[in-house]
Amino acid sequence: MAHSVDLVEVWRGDLLECLHQGHAVVCDDTGQIVEAWGDPTALIYPRSSCKMVQALPLLESGAGAHLSDEQLALACASHNGAAIHTDRVQAWLGDLGLTDDDFRCGPQMPNDKDARYGLIRAFEEPCQVHNNCSGKHAGFLTLSKHLGAGPDYDQIDHPVQQACKAAFEEVTQETSPMFGIDGCSAPNHACTLHGLARAMAFFASAHDRSDARSQAAVRLARAMSAFPELVAGETRACTELMRAIDGNVAIKTGAEGVFIAIIPEKRLGVALKIADGATRASECAIAAILVRLGVLDPAHPATVARMQPPIHNRRDIVTGQIRPVAALR
Amino acid sequence: MAHSVDLVEVWRGDLLECLHQGHAVVCDDTGQIVEAWGDPTALIYPRSSCKMVQALPLLESGAGAHLSDEQLALACASHNGAAIHTDRVQAWLGDLGLTDDDFRCGPQMPNDKDARYGLIRAFEEPCQVHNNCSGKHAGFLTLSKHLGAGPDYDQIDHPVQQACKAAFEEVTQETSPMFGIDGCSAPNHACTLHGLARAMAFFASAHDRSDARSQAAVRLARAMSAFPELVAGETRACTELMRAIDGNVAIKTGAEGVFIAIIPEKRLGVALKIADGATRASECAIAAILVRLGVLDPAHPATVARMQPPIHNRRDIVTGQIRPVAALR
Repeated sequence: MAHSVDLVEVWRGDLLECLHQGHAVVCDDTGQIVEAWGDPTALIYPRSSCKMVQALPLLESGAGAHLSDEQLALACASHNGAAIHTDRVQAWLGDLGLTDDDFRCGPQMPNDKDARYGLIRAFEEPCQVHNNCSGKHAGFLTLSKHLGAGPDYDQIDHPVQQACKAAFEEVTQETSPMFGIDGCSAPNHACTLHGLARAMAFFASAHDRSDARSQAAVRLARAMSAFPELVAGETRACTELMRAIDGNVAIKTGAEGVFIAIIPEKRLGVALKIADGATRASECAIAAILVRLGVLDPAHPATVARMQPPIHNRRDIVTGQIRPVAALR
Repeated sequence: MAHSVDLVEVWRGDLLECLHQGHAVVCDDTGQIVEAWGDPTALIYPRSSCKMVQALPLLESGAGAHLSDEQLALACASHNGAAIHTDRVQAWLGDLGLTDDDFRCGPQMPNDKDARYGLIRAFEEPCQVHNNCSGKHAGFLTLSKHLGAGPDYDQIDHPVQQACKAAFEEVTQETSPMFGIDGCSAPNHACTLHGLARAMAFFASAHDRSDARSQAAVRLARAMSAFPELVAGETRACTELMRAIDGNVAIKTGAEGVFIAIIPEKRLGVALKIADGATRASECAIAAILVRLGVLDPAHPATVARMQPPIHNRRDIVTGQIRPVAALR
């Protein structure tokens, strides 16, 4: 694995109790690295951070021409499985004439407390619509129907996944050397961290171009920043930080310590990976980089809660703090 | 932070997706290091891995002379809050003439699914007895009563915590430079990883000595290995691995990536710390070291499930694997 650098510290009292290493890249719309920590050539899986890339064929093909911005935000989401998410995805499925059984993402207990407690109290098991990726899969099903393709839309040789792979390689400007199977069963293509930041800079500068892909990129990123509560959910970093930002910045987490940002006003893309996969560290690091780039207020409560959150114990006593290393501040 | 080394890999498909670094020490009963990875002088908080050390004054003082081995196992436990744990701790509190309000550990939603779902379905909040540390705190309260000390048994200057600190420094053979406040509000004293391994070697060789502290150490370690289900709970690494070991080995996890082992048949103590605090990595590493030391069968399902577990996605497809680095195998 590429050589990573210290990015996030976890203090308890006066002792550095844990340390998270990783890589981060800020890239402009020419593909040039503006700033980097660690190794920009580190090979990673973007996981859910690249859902807006996976949604490009949905719009470019025309399959999603009728979709609302709320639906597009859900196509790019890793949602909490709250009613605001599942009601909309359920309705979308209905529009397609499909049912929960047509999904290939698998069931997942919702992260949203009300939804989770509701299922438990009703002695019900979660469905596939509760899967945090169900909006992405509704997008896949929409494209699959448009293409007249078969039901196995999660398979690597399916036209939907082939279109996703082509879009991914074109916006990262890399030939992906391999793919893994994601938590939701869709293929996830490897790229360098630089490639992922380059893809995000493509989105961040798309408003200056008029081709179909760039128009799709603009719509997707704007849908994300317009509906932050649909991209993740209450209490989640993506939602709270997008609300805290005064502008059209789109940010997105990915499993195993990935985070991206699309910053149209600066035409910059950001991508980072925590080497050990910790979410507490990826959230801290993306907040620190957004503050550093001048798009996030360091004093905003949502920023403080991610960038330098106090650690509370079970009696609500502050026992420590998570904070970015000096090089990120 | 001391220089850590690669210990645990997380693969997805053909890509090394995450890497966990850390330190580990195997120490004999003379305090000599038998084998080490990373830096044995790394300063850490043992967190819950040293609960058997915190229980030494309970027995040495005579306060716990009447306690059963089940109660001693609970005093050393980070339990799941299942009925088998909370019923026994509740009864212990009753024996002391105390109630849940006398605890200072704070409430915690049980990790045990049946207990958690039961509370949610009854619209009840968890109590302090559900806290994974409630057995340790019952031990603290028992010692406090014996000493005729005040109710604030979690404070650093309380006779209970002063006794714990003295025992900790004596078995680690170090003067602790600082303490932090643990998740359960008790002080947790820092030591080197070597010091923690030395303490565990003290426990592992205690059966050869007849002093009061050694007798206490023998009883505590035997109580842990005799009642593995009370030390953690069903599905947990401590419980499953102690059941898988044919012998009296005691093992214990601690928050933020700590794990220890006490191996009486070899008079060895083991301590390890994952630098980023990941439990998936500490469980993998302790299993690998126990296999390496010849006390754990590599083919046992409980071993495989911790040392080289397949990663399943939400449709139960195997997408990757966690595994120890070659240097640990």
